[in-house]
Amino acid sequence: MDETTTVGYEYTDDSQEPRLGEDATVRAGTIIYDDVVIGDRFSTGHYALVRELTEIGDDVLVGTNTVIDGRSIIGSNVSLQTGVYVPSKTTIGDQVFIGPHAVLTNDPHPIRQEVELAGPTIESHVSIGANATVMPDMTIGEGSFVAAGAIVTDDVPPETLAIGAPAEHQPLPEALQRRNDI
Amino acid sequence: MDETTTVGYEYTDDSQEPRLGEDATVRAGTIIYDDVVIGDRFSTGHYALVRELTEIGDDVLVGTNTVIDGRSIIGSNVSLQTGVYVPSKTTIGDQVFIGPHAVLTNDPHPIRQEVELAGPTIESHVSIGANATVMPDMTIGEGSFVAAGAIVTDDVPPETLAIGAPAEHQPLPEALQRRNDI
Amino acid sequence: MDETTTVGYEYTDDSQEPRLGEDATVRAGTIIYDDVVIGDRFSTGHYALVRELTEIGDDVLVGTNTVIDGRSIIGSNVSLQTGVYVPSKTTIGDQVFIGPHAVLTNDPHPIRQEVELAGPTIESHVSIGANATVMPDMTIGEGSFVAAGAIVTDDVPPETLAIGAPAEHQPLPEALQRRNDI
Repeated sequence: MDETTTVGYEYTDDSQEPRLGEDATVRAGTIIYDDVVIGDRFSTGHYALVRELTEIGDDVLVGTNTVIDGRSIIGSNVSLQTGVYVPSKTTIGDQVFIGPHAVLTNDPHPIRQEVELAGPTIESHVSIGANATVMPDMTIGEGSFVAAGAIVTDDVPPETLAIGAPAEHQPLPEALQRRNDI
Repeated sequence: MDETTTVGYEYTDDSQEPRLGEDATVRAGTIIYDDVVIGDRFSTGHYALVRELTEIGDDVLVGTNTVIDGRSIIGSNVSLQTGVYVPSKTTIGDQVFIGPHAVLTNDPHPIRQEVELAGPTIESHVSIGANATVMPDMTIGEGSFVAAGAIVTDDVPPETLAIGAPAEHQPLPEALQRRNDI
Repeated sequence: MDETTTVGYEYTDDSQEPRLGEDATVRAGTIIYDDVVIGDRFSTGHYALVRELTEIGDDVLVGTNTVIDGRSIIGSNVSLQTGVYVPSKTTIGDQVFIGPHAVLTNDPHPIRQEVELAGPTIESHVSIGANATVMPDMTIGEGSFVAAGAIVTDDVPPETLAIGAPAEHQPLPEALQRRNDI
């Protein structure tokens, strides 16, 4: 492992070393905090960040410059491409793809009201396109597809295409009526 | 301090060490250039970049992967979340929140005309949502709120909600009629 | 060169050292993979990434946090600003400007169909604005200008302004009827 890579970033005096499963590939520049539990065949790009109290399943890719800001739960067979932002208190299912530069959020009225932070819930077999933005506390239903650049301001039902800014909901076009296979 | 962190990146032969106030927390991977002056209780995420000739007040957070590209003035009680881009010649007031992946710009006709670069002016108590884009030389008036994903192409008056692409101006909804408290 | 900078990241056992021309400036934190060929006067910001099997001409800037994900061809006099994403299988001509946080993509139906990845073709003298998104396999014609925040979903003819989400095509306004001069 490269000397710029940190597996076990101590964020409090009593934090515990992260646990990674078998066959992990953590590329140069990546930082994984303490109190993280990750399954088998984990891989990262460069300069990825996984903060504390995150649970990640098997066969997950965290791309270059992608930030998982802690206290989140991520399933298995998940691919987070380059420069994705996953805020704290996010839940992601299995077989989920999130495209480059997509942003999830967790604060509906930043700095204007005392609210409990709530990241989105991304159900299994969802794909989110490049540079999309998902508002706090949204649920993206199983099998749905968020188009590139969409701004998701309402819950997306299962098997739905969310497209536009703000996103409108349409039936999935035939080309997207499949399950993800990551 | 981690060996991947640089406080005092020498960019010319006669540049001067940056000055940081009390109780700074500069996390691993962050680079602060010479000729930067920062107040008390400064903190950063990882891999943040603060370039030369920038002045920053007290109680400022610069998030992971956020870039302040130099020659900018930033007030006190400012929170720049993850992956924000602040171009050179930007002015930011006090009590300002900028959400993840928001982009400020400073060149109206890139590479097509000789223009003087001019970043935006973000007045005090402004919040800018995730993945918003602010065009060069715009002024975002005091207390205004730029929605997530908005493209700001005109000056935003004080106490205004800017929403959409391109952004339209609306009165602040009741839930946002507060001052920021960072 | 800083110890956090890597010129020649070995990605397979038989990969070959990258070749850089004269007067390169590779800033701290940048990683250049093996099997990359770059011309003269190359410069980077911090934490840029250039992956394998990429060819780059002369006088090219790769900004801070910008990712070139490999197997791409980039001409001369190209400026990629901060946080740009260039996926594999992209072609970029000469005198091209890509603004901060712009995202190019290469997969039209991520994870839903077996397709051959195809990045866009950006012809010479194109400028792409901040935070724009370009869909896979698009061609942006010579001299065209993609506005900040635009979502490009169709090929853009030469000498055209693409603006909006999804982008509409308009004649270039007079202020943009120039060639790029990088």
